[in-house]
Amino acid sequence: MSKYSFKINELDYKIMNKVQERLDNLTKPLGSLGMLEELVKRLSGISSELYPDISKKKVVIMCADNGVVDEGISQSGKDITSIVTKNFTKGITGINVLSNFANAEILIVDIGVENDFNSKKILNRKIAMGTKNITKEPAMSQREVERAIEVGISIMKDLKKEGVGLVATGEMGIGNTTTSSAIASVLIKKPVEEMTGRGAGLTKEGLQRKKEVIKKAILINKPDENNPIDVLRKLGGYDIAGIVGLYIGAAIYRLPILIDGFISVVAALVAIIFEPKVKSFIFATHASAEPGNKIVMDFLGLKPFLHLDMRLGEGTGATLAFNIFDAAVYTYKNMGTFKKAKIKKYIPLK
Amino acid sequence: MSKYSFKINELDYKIMNKVQERLDNLTKPLGSLGMLEELVKRLSGISSELYPDISKKKVVIMCADNGVVDEGISQSGKDITSIVTKNFTKGITGINVLSNFANAEILIVDIGVENDFNSKKILNRKIAMGTKNITKEPAMSQREVERAIEVGISIMKDLKKEGVGLVATGEMGIGNTTTSSAIASVLIKKPVEEMTGRGAGLTKEGLQRKKEVIKKAILINKPDENNPIDVLRKLGGYDIAGIVGLYIGAAIYRLPILIDGFISVVAALVAIIFEPKVKSFIFATHASAEPGNKIVMDFLGLKPFLHLDMRLGEGTGATLAFNIFDAAVYTYKNMGTFKKAKIKKYIPLK
Repeated sequence: MSKYSFKINELDYKIMNKVQERLDNLTKPLGSLGMLEELVKRLSGISSELYPDISKKKVVIMCADNGVVDEGISQSGKDITSIVTKNFTKGITGINVLSNFANAEILIVDIGVENDFNSKKILNRKIAMGTKNITKEPAMSQREVERAIEVGISIMKDLKKEGVGLVATGEMGIGNTTTSSAIASVLIKKPVEEMTGRGAGLTKEGLQRKKEVIKKAILINKPDENNPIDVLRKLGGYDIAGIVGLYIGAAIYRLPILIDGFISVVAALVAIIFEPKVKSFIFATHASAEPGNKIVMDFLGLKPFLHLDMRLGEGTGATLAFNIFDAAVYTYKNMGTFKKAKIKKYIPLK
Repeated sequence: MSKYSFKINELDYKIMNKVQERLDNLTKPLGSLGMLEELVKRLSGISSELYPDISKKKVVIMCADNGVVDEGISQSGKDITSIVTKNFTKGITGINVLSNFANAEILIVDIGVENDFNSKKILNRKIAMGTKNITKEPAMSQREVERAIEVGISIMKDLKKEGVGLVATGEMGIGNTTTSSAIASVLIKKPVEEMTGRGAGLTKEGLQRKKEVIKKAILINKPDENNPIDVLRKLGGYDIAGIVGLYIGAAIYRLPILIDGFISVVAALVAIIFEPKVKSFIFATHASAEPGNKIVMDFLGLKPFLHLDMRLGEGTGATLAFNIFDAAVYTYKNMGTFKKAKIKKYIPLK
């Protein structure tokens, strides 16, 4: 996998200047819409539209199993990955409800679940029946990690064709905070202790075990800390690799894409170190309760704006943020200008 | 004004227990919806409904002038208060656009603007043509501050009758970060230096002047730091007093009410010190960029969940948060239960 095999163009700064000009002429103190202004500008820079159309929204949920679950690092067994993936098709999970609420569609992708679904509602892009156990060997082969990334890229190509304007990342995979903490720890060069959390409620002993397992996996696999794809291949999961592909695809096909929680910010870390140009197309949204989340966000210089202490994954945090993007575009489009309001520009002390 | 002149009942903990029970039976790890769960529980505790109806929303904008503007503590003159108040009726301001977006109505209240409007779109509850200059005398008389608070209380009574389910506070008044910083500084016993910010863009010299003016106002008026109504009367504005009344009214008539920015969190500070029971009815939403905001939020133990660095006031931060409340109620209502999903309760490590 070489970053020279695809082309990513810069943001459209010309149109962003025009957006800034309009923003500065709206009847409000300069810059007082805060991050809403930044969101709109970047959306325009990505789509090259003065009024970006983000009405069609999609949540892509990468589902995969992790071999490391055999080491007892999670309270649930692997079967839960498969059960919840199936539940996504029944409309009863958190992400079903929140995507309905946000008027967004979901795309359920089996990229490596240890179960065959034969369901029209699940996109079959299975690379393997889960990854290998990373305490014993690399999670994936070079070919496998590349194929998983390509799955993500090709999905973004399809979404662009469909007319989707805004994409949220989601995932389901028991054990994926373990793989995420392992990757982040190596790439950011921070101790496993700081990067590893209790997930949805591990005991003190469970947390200790999880940390030992991650350390062992790093020791056994000797990932090249300067090669994000090597780290991803040896410690990661298909879900994370698939999301890395979504980010790269977002940059190639110029679609704004939202980080959800810890797993997807670690995927962003991999993608951005691999190809820094990708960063302009990625938006932070929700600050997950997982401790490693803040470390990775800070490392990437990203500022999530929703602080709801959620830890459900599935894309729920990013999907809740859709409304803020809509609000930003709506406000930018519909607010009056100073000319219309018949007052001079003002910078009141409010 | 005595807090014994009205009655505030506790939250309905019986119904909150039932809500918790349902939340714990939804197909998700326990507590994984984070703050969304807290929001729903408290909404139910306020309305005593198992499924609270917050569909009808109102933004109440308290508009008033501040005599202290004569001291040159703001870049805009007093005329801007009147102009923007009028612009609220034309539908072109930030709060017009954001309330349209959120499908909420606005209520524009003239509680002390130095101008007569004669507009059916502006509720005339004027106490006076602005407050007195606090560097020379108290902002209001005892009768005036009480009447301003009563305006807020009676508006909440009317909103309850109208069937409103969720209320956001908003304000417009040039100079009201000065009055807010003054009040907060005295009530929290923090130096004026820490509590005072540049608002929408004061120069370094302007900021220094603002701090001196606040110190002088405190020195001249000698507010009783243990009596929040005395502090409000001597240093405040009609906008702040009106919002204090909204909070008290929210508690009396049992309606959830949202803090917007710095001015409205200072009003919450006054209301909660005056009558701690009010706190259960007030929700933090947006973390304003004004430095005093975080100090007051922390003092009150409130955690705003939207971090958008906005500093527009008018109720825009709180109005953006409406969607999160809707999402919380919608998710709680529509997610599947473990029974329906045919799986045992699980606490997966996500």
